[in-house]
Amino acid sequence: MITPKILQGTRDFLPRDMAKRDFVMNQIKSVFVRFGYDTVETPAIEYAETLLGKYGDEGSKLIYRFHDNGGRDIALRYDQTVPFARLVAMNWQELPMPFKRYQISKVWRADRPAKGRYREFTQCDIDIIGTQNLLAEAEIAKVMAEVFQALGFKNVAIKFNSRRLMNSVLERLNIPREIQTIVLRTLDKLDKVGLEAVQNELNGVMEPAVATRLLTFLDSRGNNEEKIERLQTFDVQEIREFLEKSRLFGIPEGVLEFDPCLARGLDYYTGIIFEAFLKDVAIGAVCAGGRFDDLCGLFSEESFSGVGVAFGFDRLVVGMEQLELLKAVSLNAQVLVTYFDENTLPKALATLNELQRANINTEMYFEPTPLNKQFKYAAKKEIPFVLIVGPDEVKRDEVTIKVMKTGKQKTIPANQAASYLTGYTS
Amino acid sequence: MITPKILQGTRDFLPRDMAKRDFVMNQIKSVFVRFGYDTVETPAIEYAETLLGKYGDEGSKLIYRFHDNGGRDIALRYDQTVPFARLVAMNWQELPMPFKRYQISKVWRADRPAKGRYREFTQCDIDIIGTQNLLAEAEIAKVMAEVFQALGFKNVAIKFNSRRLMNSVLERLNIPREIQTIVLRTLDKLDKVGLEAVQNELNGVMEPAVATRLLTFLDSRGNNEEKIERLQTFDVQEIREFLEKSRLFGIPEGVLEFDPCLARGLDYYTGIIFEAFLKDVAIGAVCAGGRFDDLCGLFSEESFSGVGVAFGFDRLVVGMEQLELLKAVSLNAQVLVTYFDENTLPKALATLNELQRANINTEMYFEPTPLNKQFKYAAKKEIPFVLIVGPDEVKRDEVTIKVMKTGKQKTIPANQAASYLTGYTS
Repeated sequence: MITPKILQGTRDFLPRDMAKRDFVMNQIKSVFVRFGYDTVETPAIEYAETLLGKYGDEGSKLIYRFHDNGGRDIALRYDQTVPFARLVAMNWQELPMPFKRYQISKVWRADRPAKGRYREFTQCDIDIIGTQNLLAEAEIAKVMAEVFQALGFKNVAIKFNSRRLMNSVLERLNIPREIQTIVLRTLDKLDKVGLEAVQNELNGVMEPAVATRLLTFLDSRGNNEEKIERLQTFDVQEIREFLEKSRLFGIPEGVLEFDPCLARGLDYYTGIIFEAFLKDVAIGAVCAGGRFDDLCGLFSEESFSGVGVAFGFDRLVVGMEQLELLKAVSLNAQVLVTYFDENTLPKALATLNELQRANINTEMYFEPTPLNKQFKYAAKKEIPFVLIVGPDEVKRDEVTIKVMKTGKQKTIPANQAASYLTGYTS
Repeated sequence: MITPKILQGTRDFLPRDMAKRDFVMNQIKSVFVRFGYDTVETPAIEYAETLLGKYGDEGSKLIYRFHDNGGRDIALRYDQTVPFARLVAMNWQELPMPFKRYQISKVWRADRPAKGRYREFTQCDIDIIGTQNLLAEAEIAKVMAEVFQALGFKNVAIKFNSRRLMNSVLERLNIPREIQTIVLRTLDKLDKVGLEAVQNELNGVMEPAVATRLLTFLDSRGNNEEKIERLQTFDVQEIREFLEKSRLFGIPEGVLEFDPCLARGLDYYTGIIFEAFLKDVAIGAVCAGGRFDDLCGLFSEESFSGVGVAFGFDRLVVGMEQLELLKAVSLNAQVLVTYFDENTLPKALATLNELQRANINTEMYFEPTPLNKQFKYAAKKEIPFVLIVGPDEVKRDEVTIKVMKTGKQKTIPANQAASYLTGYTS
């Protein structure tokens, strides 16, 4: 006999977990669908060469990679962007352009597991490719806002910045290419470590006067307009146009926060970048992404500019748990029909058939055990109603309905059970 | 640049494929849910020892297996039964008993790809564990019948047999254990190769007189009652009780076919076994399974008898395609709002916001290109309605609705667009 165990960083999900996860998933999907996004799927296993070299040295080490029986070099999906780029490179002539799609699937990372860091987890992406119009950025921002609203989050911040603008600032101040990455990474920490610490760190790599000027431009105090004002001498048209188009989409006032220090790690972003946060839950960004100039560069001579974000599905679930937004999620069964004995079984099953026809999720207990055991089963499955079909009920063509929450029972004519319960379960 | 390619036996699914697959998936799930099934999920990656030795020599060779960065011996999910058994062994005290669950996920097999045989495909399982009552078998049969009905299949056969009964027949005829597997496999081919071929093959391993008696008992001609009659001298109570309970569940007459030769490959079945077929599509079994005495034997000292079946999701999709049951499936976007220029954009987006609030899946085209290009986009995305918001419309506070199927256009007051379209899109 083997001691059953699972790999660290992977998880089993029991019915209660799954009910919550399915609820969150369906809410997210319903927003994507409302904006006309269709979905695509790519395999979990790809040729390793498709994925390698796309995620930096750090990333490549975390790819699950192996040889199959035929000696092929195989890898597990690491994110959804690279396989999507490969799919587009192979199928772009069949796709509508601009092409927008959502994609939700598992990804795997050979990472050291930690709290909130998994080896197998779910990603939730939307991307719009084949257009440079800032309407695309605005739509992405609107979808983010709508997802947060659909999940019940009231207090969110969608931070954004422009890589293009940031590059102009770095250029004007003659900050050499070699240290730009360090500078961006330092600026990105402003929120966490504060102005002084950032200034000190910058002083280590550039003249203090330059660092001061840089921080004057990128000062993130005040409202969006004030921050844009401080950057007046640069081309801020992109920022203004994005904000205006977002306003037309009806994104609630105050949700979009221009953050001139926001940098985002990945090199391939070239325009507007996003990071969204739940202000009431300290869990890091729950959604992030941005504009990239060429999605398929490594796979195709066709060039596809686009913009997209990935929602951190697991973080959203954790956030909802913490804010108690998942308390009303119910399991599937609404009614349990009891099993008294073989004589009452025909009537019990006839009742079950009728309830199911009325679209009430109904199950029969599988054994003619004492009622108490059947009630316990209903309680464990969180089934709100138990329908007792015993010999007395059968004799009088009735059923007894027990409301599990209150313990109250009521006997009604059998043929009224469906209409009676429809009121409570739909 | 890399030539983009995918592994043989794996597939990309584009929006049209996904719309169909999602439709089929949702129909199947809706039946499971109506019977009160909840769902669980296990990781795609497991310790190899969890899976090895559970699928016979043949199966073990087809497991994708590798070492991770930490030297752990890892394997990809090969089916959903073994990981489910592991999950139950680890969590049975938390689960309701009897426990019924559905599970839908990808599985991987390092198989030689062929038409209809994939290295990555979707399995759809239901199982009921923790009860020996034949009501469980009957419910499984009913769920199968309901799934086929929900998918639109009119002409189906759910074949069943009893392993217990078959074993009694083999025992009475003194057919030695060593050849039982061969005998079962031979009998299983009766449908395909005919009586004579089977008799000849059996003559090779047993006395022709014994083979003749065997085939008299297991003759599959006639209706269920006639076949049961021929086995009268055995214990056919299990078959009768299963049929009676299935009748009470309201499974349509003629769907359940007792097939005394049905054997099913896997050794672990111990009672009723199932194989279901679409009579109008030659594609093999679309659902199969049966009763097993002990799900968790290899992981736990707790013993869980159960019954379950797996639906072949890909085969069901192929069957529906062939019978043209997927023609009505639509993509997500219902309305495209045109983008004329920056002056009309505010009104266009206001209209989009309003339609979305009315739960109409609506998107804006992303570029102010000539209308013809926008119409082509709508056609490619199969969007039924295009809403034209040009300068004339804006001036008069109107919108023009173009019905893509007929090409007809109609101009109406802007504030009537949502109610006008709701009638067509819901």
